[in-house]
Amino acid sequence: MDIIEIIEHKRDGLVLSDEEIHYFIKNYVSGEVKDYQASALLMAIYLKGMNDHETAVLTEEMRKSGDVFDLSDIPGLIVDKHSTGGVGDKVSLILGPMVASCGARLAKMSGRGLGHTGGTLDKLESIPGMRVILSEAEFKKQVTDIGMAIIGQNERLDPADKKLYALRDVTGTVGSIPLIASSIMSKKLASGADCILLDVKYGSGAFMKTLEDAEKLAFTMVNIGKRLGKNVKAEVTDMDQPLGMAIGNNLEIKEVIDVLNNRGSEDLKNLCLDSGAVMLVQAKLYDDIDLARKELEKNLLNGRAFKKFVEFVAAQGGDTSYILDPSKFEVAKNIIPLYSAKDGYVSRIDALKIGVSSMHLGGGREKLDDVIDMSAGIILNKKVSDAVKKGELIATLYTNKENTKEIEEVVVSAFEISDQKVTKNRENLLIQ
Amino acid sequence: MDIIEIIEHKRDGLVLSDEEIHYFIKNYVSGEVKDYQASALLMAIYLKGMNDHETAVLTEEMRKSGDVFDLSDIPGLIVDKHSTGGVGDKVSLILGPMVASCGARLAKMSGRGLGHTGGTLDKLESIPGMRVILSEAEFKKQVTDIGMAIIGQNERLDPADKKLYALRDVTGTVGSIPLIASSIMSKKLASGADCILLDVKYGSGAFMKTLEDAEKLAFTMVNIGKRLGKNVKAEVTDMDQPLGMAIGNNLEIKEVIDVLNNRGSEDLKNLCLDSGAVMLVQAKLYDDIDLARKELEKNLLNGRAFKKFVEFVAAQGGDTSYILDPSKFEVAKNIIPLYSAKDGYVSRIDALKIGVSSMHLGGGREKLDDVIDMSAGIILNKKVSDAVKKGELIATLYTNKENTKEIEEVVVSAFEISDQKVTKNRENLLIQ
Repeated sequence: MDIIEIIEHKRDGLVLSDEEIHYFIKNYVSGEVKDYQASALLMAIYLKGMNDHETAVLTEEMRKSGDVFDLSDIPGLIVDKHSTGGVGDKVSLILGPMVASCGARLAKMSGRGLGHTGGTLDKLESIPGMRVILSEAEFKKQVTDIGMAIIGQNERLDPADKKLYALRDVTGTVGSIPLIASSIMSKKLASGADCILLDVKYGSGAFMKTLEDAEKLAFTMVNIGKRLGKNVKAEVTDMDQPLGMAIGNNLEIKEVIDVLNNRGSEDLKNLCLDSGAVMLVQAKLYDDIDLARKELEKNLLNGRAFKKFVEFVAAQGGDTSYILDPSKFEVAKNIIPLYSAKDGYVSRIDALKIGVSSMHLGGGREKLDDVIDMSAGIILNKKVSDAVKKGELIATLYTNKENTKEIEEVVVSAFEISDQKVTKNRENLLIQ
Repeated sequence: MDIIEIIEHKRDGLVLSDEEIHYFIKNYVSGEVKDYQASALLMAIYLKGMNDHETAVLTEEMRKSGDVFDLSDIPGLIVDKHSTGGVGDKVSLILGPMVASCGARLAKMSGRGLGHTGGTLDKLESIPGMRVILSEAEFKKQVTDIGMAIIGQNERLDPADKKLYALRDVTGTVGSIPLIASSIMSKKLASGADCILLDVKYGSGAFMKTLEDAEKLAFTMVNIGKRLGKNVKAEVTDMDQPLGMAIGNNLEIKEVIDVLNNRGSEDLKNLCLDSGAVMLVQAKLYDDIDLARKELEKNLLNGRAFKKFVEFVAAQGGDTSYILDPSKFEVAKNIIPLYSAKDGYVSRIDALKIGVSSMHLGGGREKLDDVIDMSAGIILNKKVSDAVKKGELIATLYTNKENTKEIEEVVVSAFEISDQKVTKNRENLLIQ
């Protein structure tokens, strides 16, 4: 077997054998197969595709390429959550305490933000003292004791994905469903959870631009789970406006606190309740999804979910006084209100524009080594379907930068105002 | 402009702009564009193709990537010849003296053999003393004075092709018509001839396996010539059996001497006459192709073509006593006759098997740094359409190696013997 033959097979549209996929991943990680050969194969995969079996085998080989977490000594079924990344997506931080307060155990590894999407680790680090690097033993003990932990990805996990992801990024081979699916799933499977709930976003601020592509990706990942014997479900959700009201690190933490105190926006709360109910059923804590949802709502109202969040922050060294009194969080020097130029109804809020603007205000990274301003970001004062009058407040910028004229214009242009009443009627899909 | 965008455009099936192709070649040669990006683009080109305009622009950018020979101070139109490579292909060595004896000037840069195909330079070097490296001044003076020179390719010519060719070889992107066409044509155009005659081979021993692909390649290269203002014609010829009777370096030189003395095989002589006539018309020495052919045949019969070959060998330092008395050439230690296992008619001689066997006998290189045994090779004693009796001699192996049992079996198996009479009715096509 040699790599040129494998490239030629995929180039000619053949199905790769298990042995060929094994050979590729093993020898790419070892350096035997060169980057220029891997990139030719990636382009062939991009253009010729992979069937479900090939994609599952690729995922499994990538998973096995490095360390694999064994969480089997933690009692009960361990749940994990992954979002393909959106703007203002703080769902894991709300969902975690909610399901943990109902007896589930969430063991999650997260990433940092880059470009227009934020990262859960960065958001957590806006809480003074919060540690996101735990040893495997600490991680497992915390999941066992309080029911949740969220940490940075182990460096030795899934080296195949690290190499492939970096290569895809510079060779025009990012947007391929089998490659995206295997990248996400190999990491998730290596992190050791029993049940995985995926949130596949679509829309301008998301990786998948159309509902159709998002569905394809979701089906592909659920199928990988089935073939590899894991309980995987996927939600397909709209990112045609940012999620919730806040975009930016400590602004989003404050919104998490609001939702957990039952003061947050309805769309965000409902997504968390829906997702949480699916997770509780996946973890076999409930048979009935409606019952699970009711239990989650109860714990939101009676404060148990919030208490769990405080417990989680304390366990990872965070200063809980900020959680109990969010006014302690640093506030940006410049607070800039933006107003609507006309009367009407908000019909869309371009999530990509909002995400990029938040980054430019200091709230995100353009390059990997940029330093984030935890207080920078955007609050949306109006959301899709809201009525708005000319001169009414639609968004507020938070920044320590000056000369934000251009950013202001972009944020205002992100709001589409329609003359007609707008109804939000997008249904989130669950694929299982 | 950046390379990722260019890769994405071709990946999505778009036509690349002139600027994009310029950017790619310029920055790949300088090292700005990485091998792993070039290979992704090559795979996208392999799968999505390039139109005639893109292919011509690619060729021109590759040509301009290094030194370009200027032969304009040599009087008359300079002709060049290129074969896509076959087994037993010694046409240039016969054709050169033939057309030069009729007043044409051939300025040719050649390559070395690798794998199952031989190289003109290696064949020439089987003549003791023969120099294949000349300075540009020596090369031009020789073409001017005696009408022909055949030398190794200048190292500074077409560096883009050197890099791309090496990369294609290890990334499964060799067999793409725009990539093959631009590789051949950029080198030929950089060598400075005014008229180029291409011989595109097809069949088992050739690069193009089918007539259809060979025609496509030929049309593509002729079109490149048209777009870049050069007189380019292409023959499409059959390689379903080796060309002539001899395969192997000094064995082929001896066959060249035979043909130039009007003693060689008819198929080879006819191909040389046909090709030569096209070249004389291209060089505007004759208007009428039949008249040109007659003149060539005359110079074959009256010995002028042979005299020109002797002159050419002498000019490049070769020992002409070998040409005048071919029995002086080294003869291999082991001469192994092979016999037919049955009665019938030869219907096919697998050129790939013959080429590989000649290489294994010592007559070719498996790897670039292998040393060639100039005396090793194969003489075919029967050719397609010949009648053969059981036990009759069909081929003779020449080698200094021992234990050739396996090779003998392969060579015998290369001969297909049919019960029915076989007629050779393949017509060579001329594309112009």
